[in-house]
Amino acid sequence: MNEFDFIEYLKKKMPRSGQVCVGIGDDAAVLNATPGKQLVVSTDVVVDGVDFKIKKGVRHHFPIKVPDPFLSPEKIGRKVLAINLSDLAAMGAKPVAFVITVGKPKSLSTAWLKRFYDGLLKLAKEYDVPCVGGDFSSSKEFFASVTIFGEASPDQVVKRSGAKLGDWIAVTGTLGGSLMRHHHDFTPRIREGMFLANRRWAHAMIDISDGLVQDLSHILKASKVGAVLDLDKIPVSRDAEKMSLGNEEKARARALSDGEDFELLFTASPRNKVTLDKEWKKKFPRVPLSWIGRIGGKVSQISWRRNGKKIAPPKLSQKGFSHF
Amino acid sequence: MNEFDFIEYLKKKMPRSGQVCVGIGDDAAVLNATPGKQLVVSTDVVVDGVDFKIKKGVRHHFPIKVPDPFLSPEKIGRKVLAINLSDLAAMGAKPVAFVITVGKPKSLSTAWLKRFYDGLLKLAKEYDVPCVGGDFSSSKEFFASVTIFGEASPDQVVKRSGAKLGDWIAVTGTLGGSLMRHHHDFTPRIREGMFLANRRWAHAMIDISDGLVQDLSHILKASKVGAVLDLDKIPVSRDAEKMSLGNEEKARARALSDGEDFELLFTASPRNKVTLDKEWKKKFPRVPLSWIGRIGGKVSQISWRRNGKKIAPPKLSQKGFSHF
Repeated sequence: MNEFDFIEYLKKKMPRSGQVCVGIGDDAAVLNATPGKQLVVSTDVVVDGVDFKIKKGVRHHFPIKVPDPFLSPEKIGRKVLAINLSDLAAMGAKPVAFVITVGKPKSLSTAWLKRFYDGLLKLAKEYDVPCVGGDFSSSKEFFASVTIFGEASPDQVVKRSGAKLGDWIAVTGTLGGSLMRHHHDFTPRIREGMFLANRRWAHAMIDISDGLVQDLSHILKASKVGAVLDLDKIPVSRDAEKMSLGNEEKARARALSDGEDFELLFTASPRNKVTLDKEWKKKFPRVPLSWIGRIGGKVSQISWRRNGKKIAPPKLSQKGFSHF
Repeated sequence: MNEFDFIEYLKKKMPRSGQVCVGIGDDAAVLNATPGKQLVVSTDVVVDGVDFKIKKGVRHHFPIKVPDPFLSPEKIGRKVLAINLSDLAAMGAKPVAFVITVGKPKSLSTAWLKRFYDGLLKLAKEYDVPCVGGDFSSSKEFFASVTIFGEASPDQVVKRSGAKLGDWIAVTGTLGGSLMRHHHDFTPRIREGMFLANRRWAHAMIDISDGLVQDLSHILKASKVGAVLDLDKIPVSRDAEKMSLGNEEKARARALSDGEDFELLFTASPRNKVTLDKEWKKKFPRVPLSWIGRIGGKVSQISWRRNGKKIAPPKLSQKGFSHF
């Protein structure tokens, strides 16, 4: 099976969409924009040995110890689309379509690549988002780069820069220990993001990819505000606890900085807090929503409280991660 | 300089555009779609050692001998955007914005990466197409993946599938020997593509990336037609002649199949041929336009003529290239 046969194989497996005018197989794809909507675009790349491992016996260089870094091809395929969906969720946008480029080592079989696309397209079908183009190259290590397009009404897009003094800060799900399992099987919060955007409830929003503290800092910097967080309100995940062998301080450190949680972190007006919380529980009964603090204090800084009292900044599991 | 500093550095260098509502630095970019236009999307990836070489002393595996495969970072940056622009040109679309993901080996300096972006952004400014997002990863070998967005009126998009029986087949520029120089310093035919699309003159169009014969086959297959080509009408480049040391047959073989010409190959109604040719010479006096044959004959097949007489298929410099 050569490259062109493989593309034909993929075309047949693609979910259909009314917005796709020209899909895979021309110089470019052509999409119909919904009148009155804006186009929302995000791109992410994953690389073997950095975001996951394909082969055993390769030196381990994950930032923290992982139970099993060797993901199946289906899980790798699922993850590269899921992290892009998560970015759209953080803008409150509806997914429309995506394109993908793949670097394929000659040693990697077509069977492996088919399984990669099985995982990718299964998630694509769940979210009704077709692949409309792509490009293959050979490469020494496997990588995949996805660019996703979504749409949103101009007045509903949720940026990082909209946080206002006095806003409550909320986070979905539970945090930390994602590398146990969550980093590849998480549910992108598309429905939740659209819900928060459509009702204009979220003033600022981001998805947690680098860890709660670092990603909140992005909101604070963009919005030119500070934050006061309640340490006892941070939702610590079961996996963060497991990885910390019952040490509460270590588990909380993970919840604050582990990364790859892909939960939504947003701010909302105190005026809407009670209604939002009530409506949330009705609409998303299985997704926890935690109110972890307020916008205020020194610009770009996070101050901490515990049971209402000021405390020193807690320990983190890691500082920010840089690819450079 | 870490990843975040580098992104700040890039933001300052970015050309501005009225269509970009949210650019670099949020979870996703937000673009305003022009009412009544469709979104046109293309993606291409380039990898060190496949599309160019960064370091000396690495084993050569280009499909043909190249005078100097070691491109400067500026040239590599220029090329990855140029090949995407060329795809939009082949649809007759106007570029709007692009996103890029980069895999960066730890050994590659920030100075190198700055020069890569210098080449990329110089071309971006020439075409007024801003970068609105991206993602970095570390990797063993350098790669860059660009996704570009353009727009076009729904009735003007030129697909591969529109060729009609009796159409003339035309090609821009001259062909072959691209690896001498042209593959990295070519001018994407955006203005030419839009000109052909706006007047509805091109029935089917493609940019030549895999070689004239292979790319014409894509049009024939998509349009369910055949073609009759005039061997004496093929525009052979000076570089194809140089690389063939004066051997005319070898030079022509290169023009037919070398690849990476990034010229436009299109079909047009015989009704419009004279006007199109006249207008073309007025508008693009420095870009040759060659009428190389007609649509007809057996479906998906190319038959050949020379000085009006039927001949056997000419030799090619190479068969199709597969990354698998």
